[in-house]
Amino acid sequence: MSDFDAVRARIRDSFSRQGLMRTLGAELVTIEPGIAMIRLAHSDEITQQHGYIHAGATSSIADAAGGYAAMTWMDVGNEVLTVEYKINLIAPASTPILEATGTVVHTGGRLSVCSLEVIGVDGSERVLVATGQQTLYRLTTGR
Amino acid sequence: MSDFDAVRARIRDSFSRQGLMRTLGAELVTIEPGIAMIRLAHSDEITQQHGYIHAGATSSIADAAGGYAAMTWMDVGNEVLTVEYKINLIAPASTPILEATGTVVHTGGRLSVCSLEVIGVDGSERVLVATGQQTLYRLTTGR
Amino acid sequence: MSDFDAVRARIRDSFSRQGLMRTLGAELVTIEPGIAMIRLAHSDEITQQHGYIHAGATSSIADAAGGYAAMTWMDVGNEVLTVEYKINLIAPASTPILEATGTVVHTGGRLSVCSLEVIGVDGSERVLVATGQQTLYRLTTGR
Amino acid sequence: MSDFDAVRARIRDSFSRQGLMRTLGAELVTIEPGIAMIRLAHSDEITQQHGYIHAGATSSIADAAGGYAAMTWMDVGNEVLTVEYKINLIAPASTPILEATGTVVHTGGRLSVCSLEVIGVDGSERVLVATGQQTLYRLTTGR
Repeated sequence: MSDFDAVRARIRDSFSRQGLMRTLGAELVTIEPGIAMIRLAHSDEITQQHGYIHAGATSSIADAAGGYAAMTWMDVGNEVLTVEYKINLIAPASTPILEATGTVVHTGGRLSVCSLEVIGVDGSERVLVATGQQTLYRLTTGR
Repeated sequence: MSDFDAVRARIRDSFSRQGLMRTLGAELVTIEPGIAMIRLAHSDEITQQHGYIHAGATSSIADAAGGYAAMTWMDVGNEVLTVEYKINLIAPASTPILEATGTVVHTGGRLSVCSLEVIGVDGSERVLVATGQQTLYRLTTGR
Repeated sequence: MSDFDAVRARIRDSFSRQGLMRTLGAELVTIEPGIAMIRLAHSDEITQQHGYIHAGATSSIADAAGGYAAMTWMDVGNEVLTVEYKINLIAPASTPILEATGTVVHTGGRLSVCSLEVIGVDGSERVLVATGQQTLYRLTTGR
Repeated sequence: MSDFDAVRARIRDSFSRQGLMRTLGAELVTIEPGIAMIRLAHSDEITQQHGYIHAGATSSIADAAGGYAAMTWMDVGNEVLTVEYKINLIAPASTPILEATGTVVHTGGRLSVCSLEVIGVDGSERVLVATGQQTLYRLTTGR
């Protein structure tokens, strides 16, 4: 198993233990160095008042994607915490699918910064639903 | 029915149509002029990888509380959209209950600003879990 | 004079009336559709306590670059206001030159979103100093 | 000299070495545990295109006030860095005086969170000009 396979395994294990991601129906579809992508399909369980995907669900997958993107740079024995994030909700999430991508913009010492992007996907059509910026902290756990 | 009772009824109706709030198990407990509070109890459906309430759930109720706080100032025929928000996640949501309060800091023309606060409650103990700031836009729908 | 030359002229006129930009020694070096770049040279008038360029100066040119980027999409009779911005200060501004670029990510109706990037330049070396995200409002002034 | 007098002295020394604060004409008027306030008077050197105080100057004093507020909790041998901040510009800074107050909301381990508030003052009239939220990092310097 390569080092990055071990990273992937730790990230998949963490994701699988997040009850919220399971409840939302979110899938972790990409883990590459400095990048993670989470996909979410529309369902009646995750809507806002007009039947679109709720901004809370959109934000949840964006934040999680950024967290796992940052975790791709971290050795075993470290954990990543979201310190804060900011998200602009640009268009209603009216498509059947959302794809949230977190990308590490900077990492150094204890702190990382990720950019967050959520795209609404309807067949070949893609629309920018949300864009954000996130700060993360690396906690040494020793495990 | 007083004018503010009508506001409350519109807000309760909107909240009841949010599938995500029902899925999370969130309750809208307070609606006063310029303020709304949403309560969320811990369950295995809304956890992160350590079993605490997921930051995505925390953010969802904070954002929704701010939106309904802004809506308390709006006449019928207007709708409120979250333009953006920023949230600092200060402590793990390790308590059985979270209370998210949105408070209008400024409203004028099309834009409102709310402060967001999420408190973890465990019996008589209260801890600051998250604090945020949100910008909202008033859309005239005519309905 | 092309339409975009008229846009450029309005932007240059606005910039020249900003006393703060003159005081900081900032120069508006690029105006293209959806993009503006402002350059700032180090001087003792704009430092923080260690002699680097102050984060306040960094933020000022980033915010202004985003505002002028948004203004490139606006017809005469409209003005742009910064609603809010968020900025991560990633590295000390220890280089002799800073270049702040604002890029429009989305524009529609009254609101625009820009991404902000500040690069420290020292000869051929370039370092990411700050990254941000900004929301702007288009005000119809009729002039 | 009490311990807090020593803190005050370190903060005043740091402020006096910030060339930008001197250039803007900013004064550090309050240092109390968890709170700092900076005052700024209007001048033609710090304006935006309509002659009001520039948002960049407003943000600069807000960020600095938050930084010094966080520094009131720090022992000698530590330094505070702004990780990021977010600011909503609510009203034009059309008053002769601005007062920016930073207040520590949380501090623990390496990270602090401050709330930022900028009030425009014109005689007895006070108006909310900006509100923000800031994350800071404590760096151990040993000096």
